[in-house]
Amino acid sequence: MTRKLFELCGTETERVFSPFCWRTRMALAHKGLDAETIPWRFTEKEAIAPHRSDKVPVLIDGETSVADSWAIANYLEDTYPDRPSLFGGAGGRAMGQMLNWWGDVTVVGGIFPMIVKDIHDHLRPADQAYFRATREKRLGKTMEQAAANRDHAVEDFRKSLLPMRMTLKTQPYLGGDAPNYADYIVFGPFQWARAISPFRLLAEDDPIYAWREKLLDAFGGMARTSPGYAA
Amino acid sequence: MTRKLFELCGTETERVFSPFCWRTRMALAHKGLDAETIPWRFTEKEAIAPHRSDKVPVLIDGETSVADSWAIANYLEDTYPDRPSLFGGAGGRAMGQMLNWWGDVTVVGGIFPMIVKDIHDHLRPADQAYFRATREKRLGKTMEQAAANRDHAVEDFRKSLLPMRMTLKTQPYLGGDAPNYADYIVFGPFQWARAISPFRLLAEDDPIYAWREKLLDAFGGMARTSPGYAA
Repeated sequence: MTRKLFELCGTETERVFSPFCWRTRMALAHKGLDAETIPWRFTEKEAIAPHRSDKVPVLIDGETSVADSWAIANYLEDTYPDRPSLFGGAGGRAMGQMLNWWGDVTVVGGIFPMIVKDIHDHLRPADQAYFRATREKRLGKTMEQAAANRDHAVEDFRKSLLPMRMTLKTQPYLGGDAPNYADYIVFGPFQWARAISPFRLLAEDDPIYAWREKLLDAFGGMARTSPGYAA
Repeated sequence: MTRKLFELCGTETERVFSPFCWRTRMALAHKGLDAETIPWRFTEKEAIAPHRSDKVPVLIDGETSVADSWAIANYLEDTYPDRPSLFGGAGGRAMGQMLNWWGDVTVVGGIFPMIVKDIHDHLRPADQAYFRATREKRLGKTMEQAAANRDHAVEDFRKSLLPMRMTLKTQPYLGGDAPNYADYIVFGPFQWARAISPFRLLAEDDPIYAWREKLLDAFGGMARTSPGYAA
């Protein structure tokens, strides 16, 4: 019974991106679980419709399918309790929900306008049309306008990470002495950007930069060896 | 052996404020621990100097004294492990550190300019001079200028709480089904504002408003019955 994960890709099937798929991929590795990638593209809604989702990740684990990265993390924690914990207890799971929203709003939301054009450029033409239409509506501007503003936007983005930066000055990971799902919540969006964009999100002297380096090396360099830019 | 807590006050000793003292007061109540208040004012540095601190809260518990609300929470969790947990495990403690910084930056930092003039107006003249000089330097503007801008600032503040608002749409407290230290991290700043300012920080239809109401009622209405404004 092979575990399978629908993961977002573009023109190249091996260049998997999506902040949410990377959260799941790191969570699986944390639990020591393999999963075969099923490459999925934005317009392939029918492929995942049987799993009651229109977005990835979707995990298929035997007879069970689970959509949404947060739901998958909870599923993995409950289904594989004897493997390393993703949350470190009930308190970590509850606070993880808040960090997950912080990650969505501040990290995913902050990075998105800066790399949206780069994402577009890695998609197949059919997906590009869908992507441009839906994302420019969400942005309220063209992708080109968003990209043109990114040298300014990155300053605000770096400031918005202050709570995380302060945390990493007193402990090596958001999860404490070792990484857990709190770290993957934030690492996922950084790896999404790395897969698709050469734009430099972090200054090298930022503690978050050093933290990201360690997670790139985690699990035998799983994230570092995945196709990406060395930004 | 009576437990004692240095808590910030102004002209009236019973009107205790400070976001950090309120975090500690809620944490003590969560653990079912009493502590006698030692009223403390901004310029009374010598009173707490023996405890190697120039800020409150400072907790004196028998032969031990602990300064800093985060250090006190950790001390209480370690010293009273058989009482209700503040963190819900090691993961919650680690992620709590990040939420503590989020609370300091976003909630304390966001509220501060809006109520700084109200704080000033509740202080004794000797403390007012110290407070104005140090806080206007921090703000980069006068307290009156900060107050004049607060109808605008509150809109940004409410937006900045989005990750918390989203969390409270799926679980009753940041700590999960019941409040824990994650909640007190954010409640402390709200109670600080309530003690000292009639300014309305939250809209009534905000889930954070309903959450705050529940915490005002917690522990026999401890926070609600403390002197404050019904904002």
